[in-house]
Amino acid sequence: MQSYQEMSREELLKEKESLEQQYKEICKKGLKLDMSRGKPSKEQLELSMPMMDVLTSKTPLVSRAGTDIRNYGVIDGITEGQEFIASLVGLGPEAYDNVIVYGNASLNIMYDCIARSMLFGVNGSTPWCKLDKVKWLCPVPGYDRHFAITECFGIEMINVPLYEDGPDMDMVEKLVSEDDSIKGIWCVPKYSNPMGTSYSDETVRRLARLKPAAEDFRIYWDNAYCVHDLYEDKADQILEILGECEKAGNPNLPIEFCSTSKITFSGAGVSGLITSLENKADILKRLTIQTIGFDKINQLRHVKFLKDIDGVKAHMAKHAAIIRPKFEMILDRFEEELKGLGAGSWIRPNGGYFITFKANEGCAKNIVAKAKEAGVVLTGAGAPYPYKKDPKDSVIRIAPTLPPMEELKEACEVFIVCAKLASVEKLLEA
Amino acid sequence: MQSYQEMSREELLKEKESLEQQYKEICKKGLKLDMSRGKPSKEQLELSMPMMDVLTSKTPLVSRAGTDIRNYGVIDGITEGQEFIASLVGLGPEAYDNVIVYGNASLNIMYDCIARSMLFGVNGSTPWCKLDKVKWLCPVPGYDRHFAITECFGIEMINVPLYEDGPDMDMVEKLVSEDDSIKGIWCVPKYSNPMGTSYSDETVRRLARLKPAAEDFRIYWDNAYCVHDLYEDKADQILEILGECEKAGNPNLPIEFCSTSKITFSGAGVSGLITSLENKADILKRLTIQTIGFDKINQLRHVKFLKDIDGVKAHMAKHAAIIRPKFEMILDRFEEELKGLGAGSWIRPNGGYFITFKANEGCAKNIVAKAKEAGVVLTGAGAPYPYKKDPKDSVIRIAPTLPPMEELKEACEVFIVCAKLASVEKLLEA
Repeated sequence: MQSYQEMSREELLKEKESLEQQYKEICKKGLKLDMSRGKPSKEQLELSMPMMDVLTSKTPLVSRAGTDIRNYGVIDGITEGQEFIASLVGLGPEAYDNVIVYGNASLNIMYDCIARSMLFGVNGSTPWCKLDKVKWLCPVPGYDRHFAITECFGIEMINVPLYEDGPDMDMVEKLVSEDDSIKGIWCVPKYSNPMGTSYSDETVRRLARLKPAAEDFRIYWDNAYCVHDLYEDKADQILEILGECEKAGNPNLPIEFCSTSKITFSGAGVSGLITSLENKADILKRLTIQTIGFDKINQLRHVKFLKDIDGVKAHMAKHAAIIRPKFEMILDRFEEELKGLGAGSWIRPNGGYFITFKANEGCAKNIVAKAKEAGVVLTGAGAPYPYKKDPKDSVIRIAPTLPPMEELKEACEVFIVCAKLASVEKLLEA
Repeated sequence: MQSYQEMSREELLKEKESLEQQYKEICKKGLKLDMSRGKPSKEQLELSMPMMDVLTSKTPLVSRAGTDIRNYGVIDGITEGQEFIASLVGLGPEAYDNVIVYGNASLNIMYDCIARSMLFGVNGSTPWCKLDKVKWLCPVPGYDRHFAITECFGIEMINVPLYEDGPDMDMVEKLVSEDDSIKGIWCVPKYSNPMGTSYSDETVRRLARLKPAAEDFRIYWDNAYCVHDLYEDKADQILEILGECEKAGNPNLPIEFCSTSKITFSGAGVSGLITSLENKADILKRLTIQTIGFDKINQLRHVKFLKDIDGVKAHMAKHAAIIRPKFEMILDRFEEELKGLGAGSWIRPNGGYFITFKANEGCAKNIVAKAKEAGVVLTGAGAPYPYKKDPKDSVIRIAPTLPPMEELKEACEVFIVCAKLASVEKLLEA
């Protein structure tokens, strides 16, 4: 295939004319499709409907420890819930005491952790709201809702390039060791949002060995896709962060987050925080004032339904069977239509919820706008960057899970035409 | 009955000897009873077990508006959930838009509201953490967990006497109009914790008409016992605060909180915030960053089970049938044993979760300590006051709901002996 870059101006003009014709045809269809958010589809949600039957009026609503889970109390969750959360992130049940089981949204836990650090500091450090400057490292592209949290607290976000094996660790090590106003780093270590890549063992070890200038620097380890493999035979494996940090003499460095939002029900799952006992004690000091406890019935419901990590894996295989064809359809069409064309590149992920499309520089906004006009909503260009500013206007996050396959196919064709057209327009500008 | 105050020193010494003998007998029993926390009993929790069956794998998990409630989103709750919360506090379903339905704990909402005000201010005001001083009015005796929240944020708490018709409004009006560092007041307007009394219409109207020096002063209206009547025929009625504030030209003054924690399951209910649309918009500005939404399935579960305010009232009558005899047993025993004795006083509440015992000055700690030694845990003396400091060492909160009747009877007898003995000891000290 001849790439656009190799084409003469005349060839490009001809290609443009042809693409504009295709684009016009697409616009006529009056589509109304959405590839913007990482939501599970109806079909995926149906997988967890049997969970609605595991607790009934006949079930003793009592935890293994004998607690009446209908009543108040048990701030860090029932033991079986703690064990379940530990197992999700690759820890044994003996790590249950490192866990706090929360309500339905791990995002809320992360927000709370930063809010608490702003107001009260971390393990006795100065409250961040009393400091002139608080900074945060943001591997990019990254998760827009992470960046929205740090932005809302007025925390200065510093872009760090995210490579296929993790953040640029030379840069992370240098910045963190030199600047004590840097208090944290956002990490999505497995099937990162939106890249779909995972941190190498070397990256995890270097993170665990960090020597931050700030004693209250924390790694925010959002293990959102810990069990979200698309392929059983080629699942990414990441090192378990708590153990690595402990080995490195940095037990208090990581705070890990996870949830069942993309395992059972996105709006009614169970989330958890996993960290050192010292960090946990500091968190509980405020949490016991904040609430009397989270929903323990939903914790038991989840444990009864999914049972253990093997149960989770079997359940996730069903999710994979639904979403894998969606990922593959898009990636296959990209290869058929865009490979070697010089209109952008992409990575074939082994899991997670997204495909990242790297358009040619200066093309992302144009592609998103064109798709929108043709009735296909994509995640806003720039969204995977702090302050929504993609310095190269290049990264587009594609979320294939929500639309039914037939709609996704149509949306994909729209995307391909828009990507081609934007590339050609850009080249003709030059 | 001759009161202790009328007795001679010799009579008191004789009484003391007799009481010490009774106390010794009690201690021998090796009791292990708990009247400390306002928790519902097992029998009360059983009332809501049918709620576990209203949603099954066969139920379409779709809101009235057609939203798939299993998925992400709908930050302020499904409409039927909003209507339900509105009806709990005496508003019509048309007020649904004033509601945000949260997760399981209204305490967490209150904590969040103050945390947000500390970090971001209120409707554009200076964040409270940037101010030299933030103060809060605390009607006393009051709810210990309220005071724990304001204390943890370093907010200076000012005691305001709580009378049988509400807080000392002369004092509230004066303080609030003069001091712009006063940013809020804790109110439990109906069956207040622990007094069990309710605010008069005049009190509510004077609160609604406040002219605070601080534009970001808010009334924290914790309507925790809004439907928690012990008697159908003599339920306290309070004025609806949002309407009164609007009439008074102060629509943004109140933030109201309520929950089903003491209607269905204490640990797995649904809570809500009700306020003006302007306040709500300011809250949502941060809440949309904080979370993607709360558990909507549990919202639907509650609406399907309790249906509407009539359903709630019928359900609450069942609670009343269980706890009313517990309240009456204690109050009757107090009247039989303590009336006219000069060992303390109490109020007979029409609802709520507590009985307040006002011991003679300087006796509360002694009573609580003596009861503890005899195996009966009471709420700590001082707990109903900011910083746990009861200036008169007099108020004891009694929580009759949790223990089974037989245990409660034993605990009550212990309490009576301890109250008598402490009174006599105090008089003999003088």
